Amino acid sequence: MGQSGDMSETRPVVILQPAPQRTARIFGPASLAALRESFRVVDLEDVADPDRFDDVLPEAVAIIGQPDLPRERLLRAARLRAICNVEGNFFPNVDYATCAELGVYVLGCGPAYAQAVAEHSLGLAIDLARGISREDRAFRTGSERYVADGNADAILLRGADIGLIGFGNLGRALLPLLQAFAPTIRVFDPWLPDSVLREQGLEPGTLAEVLAASTFVFVLATVTAESEHLLGAAELDLLRPGSRLVLVSRAAVVDFDALLSRLAAGRFLAAVDVWPSEPMPPDSPFRDLDNLVFSGHRAGGIPAAFTRIGELVVDDLRQIAAGLPPVRMQVAARELVTRYRNRPVT
Amino acid sequence: MGQSGDMSETRPVVILQPAPQRTARIFGPASLAALRESFRVVDLEDVADPDRFDDVLPEAVAIIGQPDLPRERLLRAARLRAICNVEGNFFPNVDYATCAELGVYVLGCGPAYAQAVAEHSLGLAIDLARGISREDRAFRTGSERYVADGNADAILLRGADIGLIGFGNLGRALLPLLQAFAPTIRVFDPWLPDSVLREQGLEPGTLAEVLAASTFVFVLATVTAESEHLLGAAELDLLRPGSRLVLVSRAAVVDFDALLSRLAAGRFLAAVDVWPSEPMPPDSPFRDLDNLVFSGHRAGGIPAAFTRIGELVVDDLRQIAAGLPPVRMQVAARELVTRYRNRPVT
Amino acid sequence: MGQSGDMSETRPVVILQPAPQRTARIFGPASLAALRESFRVVDLEDVADPDRFDDVLPEAVAIIGQPDLPRERLLRAARLRAICNVEGNFFPNVDYATCAELGVYVLGCGPAYAQAVAEHSLGLAIDLARGISREDRAFRTGSERYVADGNADAILLRGADIGLIGFGNLGRALLPLLQAFAPTIRVFDPWLPDSVLREQGLEPGTLAEVLAASTFVFVLATVTAESEHLLGAAELDLLRPGSRLVLVSRAAVVDFDALLSRLAAGRFLAAVDVWPSEPMPPDSPFRDLDNLVFSGHRAGGIPAAFTRIGELVVDDLRQIAAGLPPVRMQVAARELVTRYRNRPVT
Amino acid sequence: MGQSGDMSETRPVVILQPAPQRTARIFGPASLAALRESFRVVDLEDVADPDRFDDVLPEAVAIIGQPDLPRERLLRAARLRAICNVEGNFFPNVDYATCAELGVYVLGCGPAYAQAVAEHSLGLAIDLARGISREDRAFRTGSERYVADGNADAILLRGADIGLIGFGNLGRALLPLLQAFAPTIRVFDPWLPDSVLREQGLEPGTLAEVLAASTFVFVLATVTAESEHLLGAAELDLLRPGSRLVLVSRAAVVDFDALLSRLAAGRFLAAVDVWPSEPMPPDSPFRDLDNLVFSGHRAGGIPAAFTRIGELVVDDLRQIAAGLPPVRMQVAARELVTRYRNRPVT
Repeated sequence: MGQSGDMSETRPVVILQPAPQRTARIFGPASLAALRESFRVVDLEDVADPDRFDDVLPEAVAIIGQPDLPRERLLRAARLRAICNVEGNFFPNVDYATCAELGVYVLGCGPAYAQAVAEHSLGLAIDLARGISREDRAFRTGSERYVADGNADAILLRGADIGLIGFGNLGRALLPLLQAFAPTIRVFDPWLPDSVLREQGLEPGTLAEVLAASTFVFVLATVTAESEHLLGAAELDLLRPGSRLVLVSRAAVVDFDALLSRLAAGRFLAAVDVWPSEPMPPDSPFRDLDNLVFSGHRAGGIPAAFTRIGELVVDDLRQIAAGLPPVRMQVAARELVTRYRNRPVT
Repeated sequence: MGQSGDMSETRPVVILQPAPQRTARIFGPASLAALRESFRVVDLEDVADPDRFDDVLPEAVAIIGQPDLPRERLLRAARLRAICNVEGNFFPNVDYATCAELGVYVLGCGPAYAQAVAEHSLGLAIDLARGISREDRAFRTGSERYVADGNADAILLRGADIGLIGFGNLGRALLPLLQAFAPTIRVFDPWLPDSVLREQGLEPGTLAEVLAASTFVFVLATVTAESEHLLGAAELDLLRPGSRLVLVSRAAVVDFDALLSRLAAGRFLAAVDVWPSEPMPPDSPFRDLDNLVFSGHRAGGIPAAFTRIGELVVDDLRQIAAGLPPVRMQVAARELVTRYRNRPVT
Repeated sequence: MGQSGDMSETRPVVILQPAPQRTARIFGPASLAALRESFRVVDLEDVADPDRFDDVLPEAVAIIGQPDLPRERLLRAARLRAICNVEGNFFPNVDYATCAELGVYVLGCGPAYAQAVAEHSLGLAIDLARGISREDRAFRTGSERYVADGNADAILLRGADIGLIGFGNLGRALLPLLQAFAPTIRVFDPWLPDSVLREQGLEPGTLAEVLAASTFVFVLATVTAESEHLLGAAELDLLRPGSRLVLVSRAAVVDFDALLSRLAAGRFLAAVDVWPSEPMPPDSPFRDLDNLVFSGHRAGGIPAAFTRIGELVVDDLRQIAAGLPPVRMQVAARELVTRYRNRPVT
Repeated sequence: MGQSGDMSETRPVVILQPAPQRTARIFGPASLAALRESFRVVDLEDVADPDRFDDVLPEAVAIIGQPDLPRERLLRAARLRAICNVEGNFFPNVDYATCAELGVYVLGCGPAYAQAVAEHSLGLAIDLARGISREDRAFRTGSERYVADGNADAILLRGADIGLIGFGNLGRALLPLLQAFAPTIRVFDPWLPDSVLREQGLEPGTLAEVLAASTFVFVLATVTAESEHLLGAAELDLLRPGSRLVLVSRAAVVDFDALLSRLAAGRFLAAVDVWPSEPMPPDSPFRDLDNLVFSGHRAGGIPAAFTRIGELVVDDLRQIAAGLPPVRMQVAARELVTRYRNRPVT
């Protein structure tokens, strides 16, 4: 009937098509209510027909999701102001140059995952420092050790030399957690000037310098053409004997064959959350390693991170609707967005 | 020969009898050299004969170790200024009242262990929050889960409700590590006025209040007559469903029968570092629990903590020799030292 | 033509015309050398002739300064990637919409001043809290008071209720300095969602709420049509009796007539760094106030801040030349840049 | 005799004789009510007759104040557990050795003042860094300078070299305020081992090293035989040209004649809160100095500090009455208490 329909017409139109995410997972009830209060949400979550999408596109001020957006489609999106990617990475199915030209924000939800990844990373590092999962396993077979017996290789984080490979969303979330341990933190990040690191009390270094000078190394870099196998055999050989390597960003950053041989040789310890193939083959030789803590791509995707996506989306869409810049999601830098080599998590 | 011997006579005498600790474990080379430079060390590490001890006692300004020191012995220790306990707890084999009367410092090395315990405690808490050791085990049997599948019960520490049971050395070391997560921290400590807690941004509460209001609970209390089975069945039932309990101080603070039944029922998750008997019986029903992270009294006794004991001892003995108060070891409060119910770790 | 000339051709062209700033003030020797190493600098500092500028413009990748840049000029700047404003504010002599359309970064040096302003602001606040300059004046006339006599209205910052009006560059720089006092901080900033403030431990509030609930109020807002006389008579009357007001951003944010009457009545204390006319008239009635700390637009413009501008410029121009986004200067948000109502400082 | 009389008999007796402090100044209503609830307070505030004091002494568990307590008097105080000095310093009218022998705590209220002194010290330092009071004075004579004109010697605290002379109550309260500026902090304190300073991120140094390496120097040392004129002509000549000296602890630590000549010569800037004679002579040549910020022994004695004394006293007396150690007041170290050279503030 007339009036309520008329009123709703004044709300800006937002297309919701979050696949492969699900609306119910990324929007808590409060976020969804807030979204619907401020916007007319066209829900295409379970609508595969591209014509429906194209029908609504010219009216939409924002898209929540990561549909294909080639130039011709973007040119018909006359009112579009923002694309809210809700999957954590930017994929090549969007014409980012056209977005920049048209003043369309491309927004990512990386910040929603950063705290979860940071906490998991710290947990993995302490596990490696203290042998937590290793000794827990021993207890379950009756072979546990008490007091100092199982602590020969146990070390402190306090005052340790820590290296960060990459200093983006993840590094910034991890930094305050690490600072509580009063460490020396060295960082390799070729996308940042040294001054930015120094202002935060971090020591900039080359990749080789950071690897060679650190007892704990956190691999937090995203994948680009340049960072693929950034940690190959030569780089892994720079790691200090007995050091602890935590890999939580992208498997492609590390040469896993080289990693396997060095772990098998007991050169250092590692915790790995991302794998070249997921699931890993049942007979993968990694599975026999005792100096490896296994994690199944679990660092980021926890309930609190998923619902946070919805909160970020609503806040930033409201900012944009009010004529203000987005402040919570990650604004894709036009220089970087086309460099990422991401593939969807399945 | 004459002179060097004469000169060494001017150094104050210190008795070194650290059993069951070992000199080589608690003194790094630099600490031992510093000790010998400032003091004439009478090494009784492997001398069981009490007469040797009694012969030196009247000259000694300090004892490193925890020998029996009844009143009559103390009265003969005319120059004694300090007893440096190097085992982490105060035992009832010293007449503390006489020490107080004679102005003899009784010093403990609890601060040497505090950082190690704090880091281990945080590692256990993150493990409970994220299922790190549980999923590592699954990986080793080929039953691992990826991405969100294994994260249904994963939670953040950031912004969490955290409860501390006891706020002494361990709590003070853990506090800065926790604060990085911007949590709400409630504390039960009947030995401290509320104001001391409030000044540090902590919320004082009764035991029941803290247990009922927290998602993470760290048990950090020492054992006294009052704190034995402080966490009995009734108290454990106050814990929130799905909460995470970390026990790292003394097993006697918790009723383990009550703990077992509640863990078996899946009421909450726990990480336990101290056990009613160590080693635990091979057939202990605890060993079958999946919601328990096992640790074999490993939180404190790591190499960095042991060598720190020697550093604390040397620094404080030098302070005392210079007419200054000790500042690194824990000065046993005369009101509290007789309340502890400690037994040596074997 | 010589080799060195050929080589220098490969460096991107940057136009340097910083007026009313001076190159020697904003570039330290190292920054200037770095700028010249990476770029071919066309120095138009003392060249008034616009033709010279227009001749170089088509080649320039960046402009350091704030010349007039209407649309027609920008359209001829085919290689332009960045305009580095070195005066601290964005002025209306640039066609910002065209910059956005062309993908030209408009960068401001506000971050260079933020630390200096934050430290000065804290100094003013402590002066108001403790009567530092007032009692210093008394000493010079022999009328000083000792111990408690001059402290009747002295208050602590620790645990105080603090209000921030605006939370941009200045607020972010001031925040860590304030947090050391464990205060409650309320913020009014209509350009930010509440969540952004809450995540940093700040309490969002309306202007009225923040004014009424704070003992210390820092006015850090920029001037827009909406914020002119944001603090008028009605708002100033919300301030707590005896509260302390620190004004360091823009004079136009406050109704100075209303401020004068309230200060003259002794309603509260204030420190003012920015004035409706600079210099203030010699006979301004403000000059007689004892509950006012005077500062002559001195909060930001100190040597360390000026040379920092050059560092920011060089770092960001190098980022851009390397195909990376700028990370040190403030990227002008296209939504906001046209709202500011700035006039050059003379 | 009445019931209420009988009940009150069970409360431990406390003698209240705070002169030259006043009860109304150091006890807020809540503290006074709490004191009376837990203790039978014998109020001798305005009772000069020593016999009254001596009559009550044998029953008293604690004394609030600083009456003469020679050995013979202490020996008659059979129940005495604590002497709560409420004047901020320990005076030689108490037989401290006998107190130690009898197990009587001697408690000082230094911690009550520490935050006030720390905030004032920081305010003085920023004033010296930025010329706040100097330019405020200029404004009042119409000779103010704007923007960069008055800022030639303005410097940042951020990243500065800071020296602390003495690291006791005051240093510990000042430290978190300074750390927000990410400085390098060097400390001279001959009563502490280097390790204690290093653990807090401070660099230990000799007096000469600290003075020569610092741009800001805070003098926080108490007066002993060794520290009298600790900063004489030779030491003041080590200060960097243009450095900023903040003196807030005791005037006797500095040779004021040497200070005057160096300030008159413009060697450095200083802020002084404590003076060789208070009040200073009206014709003191110090009064003409423009590079000196004057403060009249005002750093600690503010209302919030005074009422905090009462809070500390009540909390610690309750601790002691409950068989627990005091935790809020400063327990006088028996090694140090007789070294102080204090005279009452009049």
